[in-house]
Amino acid sequence: MNTPSTDTRITAVHDYLTGLQDRLCNSFGGAHMGGEFLRDRWERPEAQGKLRGGGITAVQEGGEVFERAGVAFSHVRGAQLPPSATARNPQLAGREFLAMGVSVVMHPRNPHAPTSHANVRFFSAGDIWWFGGGFDLTPYIPYEEDAVAWHRAARDACDAVSPAIYPLAREHCDEYFYLKHRGEARGIGGIFYDDVNETTPGMPLSWEQGFELMRRVGNAYHDAYREVIERRRHIPWTERERRYQLYRRGRYVEFNLVFDRGTLFGLQSGGRTEAILMSMPAEAHWAYRSPDEEMDAKLLPYLTTLRGKDWLG
Amino acid sequence: MNTPSTDTRITAVHDYLTGLQDRLCNSFGGAHMGGEFLRDRWERPEAQGKLRGGGITAVQEGGEVFERAGVAFSHVRGAQLPPSATARNPQLAGREFLAMGVSVVMHPRNPHAPTSHANVRFFSAGDIWWFGGGFDLTPYIPYEEDAVAWHRAARDACDAVSPAIYPLAREHCDEYFYLKHRGEARGIGGIFYDDVNETTPGMPLSWEQGFELMRRVGNAYHDAYREVIERRRHIPWTERERRYQLYRRGRYVEFNLVFDRGTLFGLQSGGRTEAILMSMPAEAHWAYRSPDEEMDAKLLPYLTTLRGKDWLG
Repeated sequence: MNTPSTDTRITAVHDYLTGLQDRLCNSFGGAHMGGEFLRDRWERPEAQGKLRGGGITAVQEGGEVFERAGVAFSHVRGAQLPPSATARNPQLAGREFLAMGVSVVMHPRNPHAPTSHANVRFFSAGDIWWFGGGFDLTPYIPYEEDAVAWHRAARDACDAVSPAIYPLAREHCDEYFYLKHRGEARGIGGIFYDDVNETTPGMPLSWEQGFELMRRVGNAYHDAYREVIERRRHIPWTERERRYQLYRRGRYVEFNLVFDRGTLFGLQSGGRTEAILMSMPAEAHWAYRSPDEEMDAKLLPYLTTLRGKDWLG
Repeated sequence: MNTPSTDTRITAVHDYLTGLQDRLCNSFGGAHMGGEFLRDRWERPEAQGKLRGGGITAVQEGGEVFERAGVAFSHVRGAQLPPSATARNPQLAGREFLAMGVSVVMHPRNPHAPTSHANVRFFSAGDIWWFGGGFDLTPYIPYEEDAVAWHRAARDACDAVSPAIYPLAREHCDEYFYLKHRGEARGIGGIFYDDVNETTPGMPLSWEQGFELMRRVGNAYHDAYREVIERRRHIPWTERERRYQLYRRGRYVEFNLVFDRGTLFGLQSGGRTEAILMSMPAEAHWAYRSPDEEMDAKLLPYLTTLRGKDWLG
């Protein structure tokens, strides 16, 4: 069998990603969700210090189920890889490159419904390529059932490609989504993998496997999060629960602005600020002391002592 | 005249700083402000990776005039200067050191009243010492009268010590309090100076002058902000103005978590998270598009085209 050309591969990834964006917007927006995603299509020619690219940023605000949600597709091309990308791969310095991805953050209004984040991305520079992606879940009122279902969906998606993936990607997720200054995980985890190709230690994947993993992960996120939302969206909530959720959303802001590499790289490299910060919640509160120690007592074990727990064990 | 001993100097700075904290808490808290500062006194013995120190964090939340305000006094001592401090001064590596300061952030509820920030600090390692400090103002609904009065207070405080200070400290403030990813200043500026001693280019100050500047700056902040608050606190405000203020408070969060060196150093070095994040507003909102272009049209010139304006010219 001949290796498909780079162009054929890029087209296949592009089509999957735009299709995934459509599917997510149709599933989590529309009359059944009481809110629509508005699509902002953008195109940017090459400019000093900025990358040539385009994309569609889909944002829903003020919906019945989702207070704020974003599903962004973007593709950028550059004549020269930036230094941050070539530090690990000096042989790539100066090469033309392409990066494509879909990023998702969804903040439901109901404090019983968790915030979710997902990302799938593809990077190519000539004959070198990588895949990356993953999804993680941030509850405010935790349900063990949700954590188990979330991790089962993650494991099934990974195992369909290779049994080596889930254990590594789960661990990577736990390490990455951690607020060091709080001593807390961002949520109950999931999977996260970066820079995966046929040379990746522990989980080498062929191009076909990398693309298969991208599709399994994107689709599993859609299905798993839709299930969580359907389970939680109709649970009645109190002002007390809502206040606690808004306080905990401050942690989400802290993680994204202090630690998240994608956010910081985007802001520093002249990315589209509003598209990068679509991950911010609609509203976040801060207080010197937690407003609710009883609710802390339910949530914090999930973010501390249960961190890294094998929910499928 | 003999040079006073290091201990005498440290005591003098300590007494000024604790007195300044008391004065700020009494002036901006109490029945006349509809809210009290609660004092959290802390002491920390030396621990791995953390500094020995203590202090009093005074926080007011849910007040009538101030939604959230913090006035923190802290002093830390360490057996060895951290690498971040000795990069610029390699001769200090491994020395014992002491740092003391008062940090202030006040977020009023009324959108006509600006947020303010001030900091005065002293650092000593044997016979080497530095002073640093300054204050800046972040309006949501701008008043030229406030900007002029604020800069007049800043200039007068600096000029009482040396006419070289204000022009440099004003420029440094404009450079520092800038959100690169937004192309916006945080506010209308003020003054900011760092690492000042008798060898500082452009504004060399003796120890006595450095201490005098600390006192002038601390006192000028108190007087100038009290005046602004009295001018604005009784202006009736609308829900529309309030919504815009909460949206703009998102920018304050972005600056502090993405750019502020003190915040990031504190979070990374194992500082007391809640004390460091007392600078966060009680509440902040994010939206893909500004909720109010008319209010933007009034505010944004102050943060863009008027940035660096000589308000006293």
